[in-house]
Amino acid sequence: MDIKHYMQDVGRNARAASRLMAKANTGAKNAALNAIADAIERDAALLLAANQQDMEQARADGLEPALLDRLQLTEKTIATMAQGLREMVALPDPVGEMGDFKYRPSGIQVGKMRVPLGVIGIIYEARPNVTADAAGLCIKSGNATILRGGREALHCNQAIAKCVKEGLASAGLPATAVQIIETADRAAVGELITMSEFVDVIIPRGGKGLIERISRDARVPVIKHLDGICHVYIDNEADPAKAVRIADNAKTHRYAPCNTMETLLVNEQIAATILPQIAAIYREKGVEMRGCAATQAILADAITATEEDWRTEYLAPIISIRVVSDLDQAMDHINTYGSHHTDAIVTENYTKSRQFLREVDSASVMINASTRFADGFEYGLGAEIGISTDKIHARGPVGLEGLTSEKWIVFGDGEVRA
Amino acid sequence: MDIKHYMQDVGRNARAASRLMAKANTGAKNAALNAIADAIERDAALLLAANQQDMEQARADGLEPALLDRLQLTEKTIATMAQGLREMVALPDPVGEMGDFKYRPSGIQVGKMRVPLGVIGIIYEARPNVTADAAGLCIKSGNATILRGGREALHCNQAIAKCVKEGLASAGLPATAVQIIETADRAAVGELITMSEFVDVIIPRGGKGLIERISRDARVPVIKHLDGICHVYIDNEADPAKAVRIADNAKTHRYAPCNTMETLLVNEQIAATILPQIAAIYREKGVEMRGCAATQAILADAITATEEDWRTEYLAPIISIRVVSDLDQAMDHINTYGSHHTDAIVTENYTKSRQFLREVDSASVMINASTRFADGFEYGLGAEIGISTDKIHARGPVGLEGLTSEKWIVFGDGEVRA
Repeated sequence: MDIKHYMQDVGRNARAASRLMAKANTGAKNAALNAIADAIERDAALLLAANQQDMEQARADGLEPALLDRLQLTEKTIATMAQGLREMVALPDPVGEMGDFKYRPSGIQVGKMRVPLGVIGIIYEARPNVTADAAGLCIKSGNATILRGGREALHCNQAIAKCVKEGLASAGLPATAVQIIETADRAAVGELITMSEFVDVIIPRGGKGLIERISRDARVPVIKHLDGICHVYIDNEADPAKAVRIADNAKTHRYAPCNTMETLLVNEQIAATILPQIAAIYREKGVEMRGCAATQAILADAITATEEDWRTEYLAPIISIRVVSDLDQAMDHINTYGSHHTDAIVTENYTKSRQFLREVDSASVMINASTRFADGFEYGLGAEIGISTDKIHARGPVGLEGLTSEKWIVFGDGEVRA
Repeated sequence: MDIKHYMQDVGRNARAASRLMAKANTGAKNAALNAIADAIERDAALLLAANQQDMEQARADGLEPALLDRLQLTEKTIATMAQGLREMVALPDPVGEMGDFKYRPSGIQVGKMRVPLGVIGIIYEARPNVTADAAGLCIKSGNATILRGGREALHCNQAIAKCVKEGLASAGLPATAVQIIETADRAAVGELITMSEFVDVIIPRGGKGLIERISRDARVPVIKHLDGICHVYIDNEADPAKAVRIADNAKTHRYAPCNTMETLLVNEQIAATILPQIAAIYREKGVEMRGCAATQAILADAITATEEDWRTEYLAPIISIRVVSDLDQAMDHINTYGSHHTDAIVTENYTKSRQFLREVDSASVMINASTRFADGFEYGLGAEIGISTDKIHARGPVGLEGLTSEKWIVFGDGEVRA
């Protein structure tokens, strides 16, 4: 069978399954999640063996160590996968929520109901834990999903998919509600992102190159995350202790996540006192500092930041630092160079905090908190399928609600339009 | 200046204006709307003269009568334009609405704020009233907009744009918050829908061909409306009087709108008694009936409906009629052949009404009401920029709220991630 027909079959199955998932009751979806978790724990040895096969092939193919790390399953990551699914059971089911009902002068009563998106295509790298997470979130939100993981993880993903299908079937739900693309052929992705009759939304997870390519070629709406160029602005009216703590945590808590600060902006009135304290921490932790001229005048060991630095997501122990004259210049910098992901102000000033909240055009805007909090679990979503830097539909961490939309409901009593 | 540079300038201006519009207060936006309405009334003679020029050219170019009708301005349509803008003043400002704040175990308090999308590109046919409406809605929702109307309306649109710019300036808002593309060159559209650095969303309004082309070529998210293939299902437990009234109104109130019923589904247990009553009205009003075999057995004058009929948006006094065995077959027909726009059930049965609400995958789902109610004004949105048949972001009638999204707000007190 050629790849186009294979994918059309996958799509048709997904569309049919999505109808059944949309009306599945909460109890059945939860039963499926628990059964999948049980199957994953029971099959731990099989999963490890399949992963071993993938790892050997990946090593032979010379996959980078960082990617091998992500591909590797352990007993602990398998337990975490199962636990993640069980935690989704406890989350409120968003499907069918109704509200905002109002009577209109015509006599009809109009409100909204939350409903699944339908069929969600998820394209991701060779990270087997994403397979279980994404399947679970789509099941709980009443969607059918087509998963296309990195081909390096194929055997392991197939083993997980077997558990998922078993769990779905045991709860009386269609096994085709979660389908894994079984071919390593890259043309499958091209089909997936263009078959708009079968797929309602695509969520790519991975490097910027992959996401840009998918966004460019997709004929289906894409919920995506590009850069995470996050800022902390330390205002002259900042509490210095909070400022130092947040500047430390936002940069050094972890270097690779998208919500890690990449650029520190400091008000010129406080720069000479606060920057040396922060720099001492960065030096101790081995963070390379790149600064504007004013920063370099305070921190002799800061190298020169170029225009390119302000636009760079380092994902590494490097930080760019700029001294700014006031809040307006700070916000202008953020809105110009940032990626509209997550930005924070440190200030005790009420008016400036409100201005920052309103005028910074980012998915998450924070006052006196570390940018590292921009996360589905920290926000109370229970889980996240990703973090969106788009402006329409879902912004920031995308949880179950981001996998649904609202339709209009009209209750009438025989009304007609006059 | 070549078209690419011209559009880049338009885009850059729009992006800059969007920053100012996002922080504009409600009073200033309302003042602009009132001032634009005043200017349009004051310049009525100028608008009519410009429209006259467009009409003459359009007639010389042999534009179809229906399109000439839409292009034509009258004193009455100008008054309606001004009134529409004044009614937007009374609508609540969605920008800056905050809610859902919850404390998290970490100590941070997380909630959401409603914010403008940014820059909205609107592509529409030669309908000058859309220019004023779209400008007004984008202003009230704090967005900058780039308008590309049908080139047949260029002079008239320019005259309206002059009023809009004057109104914006008089309220201290940037005149570039609303820009009209001044060139008739079609390449401008190609630039508009691909300059993702300057445009956040595209809303095409017009024929299906235009919308499909734009969706295919856009590199910016599109909020779109394709077909309106709407259904009414008359259940065997329907109140016959309501069923007849709704089947009449949903089809014959107006034939051209997208929320007009195109296919009537009737339960086989009630078909023989209800269809003749409905057919009598259709006959009287000159509606051509196309039916399945069971329909034809009841209505001798119904011609044969083909598979193609179930997929057709007639926008004309034609209706397709199918007799179905039960609710499941009706919903299966709707979800298979419909366009996910608006579908209604007529029934007195509680359980079937709930099942229809949940399982029909359409932007508007109605019980005992005419599909013609699917409209921004009827739903209480105050105005609408269009009706979306997409599933992500906004579904159904799109009003001010559909021109905004929500960002996350985090109130902290120096918290860092553990």
